[in-house]
Amino acid sequence: MSAESHAGTYAHEAEAPRSPFSLPAHPVPETAPTAARDLVEKHRGTVDDALAAAVSRSYYSRYPESPSPRVYGEGAAEAGQQAFEGHLTREFDELDDQPATDGRVGDEVSPFGPTLRIGYPHQDVERLMTAAQDAIPAWRDAGPEVRAAVCVEAIDRIHARSFEMAHAVMHTTGQPFVMAFQAAGPHAQDRALEAVAYALFEQRRVPASVVWEKPAKGEPLRMTKDYRVVPRGVALVIGCNTFPTWNSYPGLFASLATGNAVVVKPHPRAILPLAISVSAIRSALRDAGFDPDLVTLAPEADGEGLAKTLALHPAVKVIDYTGGPTFGGWLEREAGAAGKAVYTEKAGVNTVVVDSVPDLRGALGNLAFSFTLYSGQMCTTPQNVYVPRAGVDTDEGHLSFDDFADKLGQAVSRLTGDDAKAVELLGATVNDQVRSRASGLADLASSAGGRVVLDSRAVTHPTYPDAVVRTPGILALDVAAESTYTQECFGPVVFLIATDSTEQSLQRFRDTVREHGAMTAAVYSTSDDVLDAARDAAVDAGVALSENLNGQVFVNQTAAFSDFHGTGANPAANATYTDGAFVASRFRVITARRHS
Amino acid sequence: MSAESHAGTYAHEAEAPRSPFSLPAHPVPETAPTAARDLVEKHRGTVDDALAAAVSRSYYSRYPESPSPRVYGEGAAEAGQQAFEGHLTREFDELDDQPATDGRVGDEVSPFGPTLRIGYPHQDVERLMTAAQDAIPAWRDAGPEVRAAVCVEAIDRIHARSFEMAHAVMHTTGQPFVMAFQAAGPHAQDRALEAVAYALFEQRRVPASVVWEKPAKGEPLRMTKDYRVVPRGVALVIGCNTFPTWNSYPGLFASLATGNAVVVKPHPRAILPLAISVSAIRSALRDAGFDPDLVTLAPEADGEGLAKTLALHPAVKVIDYTGGPTFGGWLEREAGAAGKAVYTEKAGVNTVVVDSVPDLRGALGNLAFSFTLYSGQMCTTPQNVYVPRAGVDTDEGHLSFDDFADKLGQAVSRLTGDDAKAVELLGATVNDQVRSRASGLADLASSAGGRVVLDSRAVTHPTYPDAVVRTPGILALDVAAESTYTQECFGPVVFLIATDSTEQSLQRFRDTVREHGAMTAAVYSTSDDVLDAARDAAVDAGVALSENLNGQVFVNQTAAFSDFHGTGANPAANATYTDGAFVASRFRVITARRHS
Repeated sequence: MSAESHAGTYAHEAEAPRSPFSLPAHPVPETAPTAARDLVEKHRGTVDDALAAAVSRSYYSRYPESPSPRVYGEGAAEAGQQAFEGHLTREFDELDDQPATDGRVGDEVSPFGPTLRIGYPHQDVERLMTAAQDAIPAWRDAGPEVRAAVCVEAIDRIHARSFEMAHAVMHTTGQPFVMAFQAAGPHAQDRALEAVAYALFEQRRVPASVVWEKPAKGEPLRMTKDYRVVPRGVALVIGCNTFPTWNSYPGLFASLATGNAVVVKPHPRAILPLAISVSAIRSALRDAGFDPDLVTLAPEADGEGLAKTLALHPAVKVIDYTGGPTFGGWLEREAGAAGKAVYTEKAGVNTVVVDSVPDLRGALGNLAFSFTLYSGQMCTTPQNVYVPRAGVDTDEGHLSFDDFADKLGQAVSRLTGDDAKAVELLGATVNDQVRSRASGLADLASSAGGRVVLDSRAVTHPTYPDAVVRTPGILALDVAAESTYTQECFGPVVFLIATDSTEQSLQRFRDTVREHGAMTAAVYSTSDDVLDAARDAAVDAGVALSENLNGQVFVNQTAAFSDFHGTGANPAANATYTDGAFVASRFRVITARRHS
Repeated sequence: MSAESHAGTYAHEAEAPRSPFSLPAHPVPETAPTAARDLVEKHRGTVDDALAAAVSRSYYSRYPESPSPRVYGEGAAEAGQQAFEGHLTREFDELDDQPATDGRVGDEVSPFGPTLRIGYPHQDVERLMTAAQDAIPAWRDAGPEVRAAVCVEAIDRIHARSFEMAHAVMHTTGQPFVMAFQAAGPHAQDRALEAVAYALFEQRRVPASVVWEKPAKGEPLRMTKDYRVVPRGVALVIGCNTFPTWNSYPGLFASLATGNAVVVKPHPRAILPLAISVSAIRSALRDAGFDPDLVTLAPEADGEGLAKTLALHPAVKVIDYTGGPTFGGWLEREAGAAGKAVYTEKAGVNTVVVDSVPDLRGALGNLAFSFTLYSGQMCTTPQNVYVPRAGVDTDEGHLSFDDFADKLGQAVSRLTGDDAKAVELLGATVNDQVRSRASGLADLASSAGGRVVLDSRAVTHPTYPDAVVRTPGILALDVAAESTYTQECFGPVVFLIATDSTEQSLQRFRDTVREHGAMTAAVYSTSDDVLDAARDAAVDAGVALSENLNGQVFVNQTAAFSDFHGTGANPAANATYTDGAFVASRFRVITARRHS
């Protein structure tokens, strides 16, 4: 997920970096539906811009992140809210045309309190798989250019529902509203477009047809070779509770754009965001002349275990998963052993190494914001902060370990001191495990031998009194307490770990991330040597590094088209958004050749 | 493997298709060894040509396939033969500097008769892995451009030993000499270069560094982002008996070019070709200023089971395998479950569908050659030929099933009638299973209810009287005898299968390949509708299709840079030479970003 510029800019335009570089487009088959061919024209500019951005990895965004009426129009916010409220206590009928409905399911409860009472169409697995497989050939034969254009159209239709989505995500994940708008809306949409661009680029690497001419003594040997992109089969996307769209779209659109049918299995407590998404995609597919069963929703009741059944179904060849490490590890083993392509994002121990601080005020504010946003319930939120026991030099003088700890606590307190403002950053806690971690800091301190620098404070939400809202707590630990800090402690808990030296900090960073994984890492230092050593440690650990962040870019944010989310190089995730490896194994190429 | 133009042209020049398309090269680090930096200059043209060829997929070859003195120089053939003979009955001392030698191993016997009596340095696994891992950082930090150039240098050094290699491959695999020269020499070298080009292209997709600038209300947000390519770790290449170089180089060079260290585990009966290869690569690495332990040979005695030990070693992150389906399936399951990237080529039932024949004489000659080359011991040799029971229309009139069968048998007999000429196509049988299949055709006919159209004939080799040389046999079967023809019958055995109709032929083709896999497929038809149906069946089956071959291109040959070898879309192989998927998962990218 992403918090890109939550506190940042609001005025920007889509701006594609131009590149001299392009791969020739495939021809659009005459057999493709007329409506789909029209979409190729309609979205050509967007596709070209996205392809250029994916190669340059510089700044590009198609979907404005500001929820301002100046961008989205007067009344858009209100209409979106009404659309969301229209779903409540009803059956979600937009998916009534799904092929395999055998009942209703759904018992979402907003982390802010209200029960959603929405009924979604439960699916019979065999009928669903048959429908998905039957939908593939026409989609496959439409070729990469048509698929990319239809995917852009689908994302645009999701985009048109961004305000409705913001409420849906807020009330399933507990994200504060503006974050829900940005991360689940435009940022997720940009990530979707990024996946489409990478998928198209990868498919274009093989031309649709070529004449091969080998010099010979007399006439050259000449062969015409046609290359057809074929999908792997049915792709499964398993959504998570906290970032149902942001973490699902990359796999969903990478699989769809490469010709696969996609079954989306949402988290039982975050169905609505993916139901809306699937509905929007199905409408785009249908209007483009394709079978909407290319993308279906397979919601389940809590505890039903549908993900396992779907993952092991022989028709399923590709799996994208975000969630806990236990099931993620099971998927990697079992589905990996069955030869399926499996892309997982699980958990890790995100790390900050503090050596010395060039801009103390900026660093403290930046870190406090990263800890606070969505109550630390991002897979990218820092958890372990290593600080030398002897303290750190800063632009405001030397600080002892305890002084640094206290100043960090004060920064968090300042940021979260006003309840009404704090809830707009914190959102609500998503489940009881998070809540018990937040409330159990004192107990953890006594069992692990640490000091509570800042306790997690319960905040009363002015609008939603039933929401459980907690500020980040900070626990100071000794480096010896590794049984505590080498586990992911998902939620508003930060460990400040006293080390013998920065060298030891970097060593612990390297070792813990290699063993337990991490989605993010950061370093603060005024020393070029230390920064170099930190870069090397990050390379060894296999995690991306943010250096001396002190402004409006945060370690827990990644920007589509530029920052990789995850690396695939440590146990936290076996893949990244988005590189060639994320898309290349989702399809194969079948050649037909003949003399010419 | 490949038999590209075994009977084809001899005069050609390297010719790179020019493309308007290129990805910017990465900078060459100043810290890279001077010798390595010089290689970047030396091989820039070759790298550019190979990159352009990989994008266009039209004809390109760097290494001339003709063993003529006009190409390779007077005396080259003789010098190569002497070099080969110099290895016999000796310890292979070129690898004496390998880091973990704990003994000698090797008991190769030429399929043509002679015992080689070469002793290779057996390796202690733990010491070998440590040495391989220690070699990685400098290679990693040299970057993609340096690695590509050093790889080209390594391939050039292998190329310089092509005649020596031809004898080494002939006397370990049983390939006839000219084929051994071409397939194990220049064709394998072109496949190696192709892997290097794909690997470099994939690494260039991510720039080495970028400035990301996001528009904001005031000053834009500006970040410098450095992207470092990091390898997965140690890569293992498991060679096969029949094509030790052609099938090993793609994985070896794809892994090496992406920064991994590579341990090469040759087949116990085909060590010498890979020993020579590893020695040439190590010399290139050493002279370029890198640790030669980046590539090591780990030979084993027959039955030692070293491949399993190596495959499960935690340092090994990437595995390339060619060989039988039992161990290949084990690798896919066990190493796949452990999260390693596993690329396999196993076995299948290569298929020809004969509907009608536009050029009977050309088709029969072409098929006869495909059956005959290397006694059918190519993983790409056709095995199952489906022909309608009612016979086929040809340009020479209608032929009954039996008439077609007999004419095919006669074509094989004509091609193999002269012993001295036949052995130059057949080579020698590689093992007892192949021999018993060849000699057991009559028994198989009686048990499966078929007719021996042409029995496999034992040929006396004029030079090597101990060689067991067999011509292809053809067994006519009914489509009902599927327990016989749905298994791979590796060696000089062809099944001619009588079907109810071409429709049934295509259905059997589709079903058997989906279930049992295939590396190749071909169709003969004068009907556009049938050809279209065959293309669709090939897409459904996930196998490449050759249509109406009647000249100097054969179904069992694939050309580097243009034809994919395997598809990854059926059980015969989970990967292909070479596409993006073959290289993209061999490395990861680690970002370091900071305000700028």
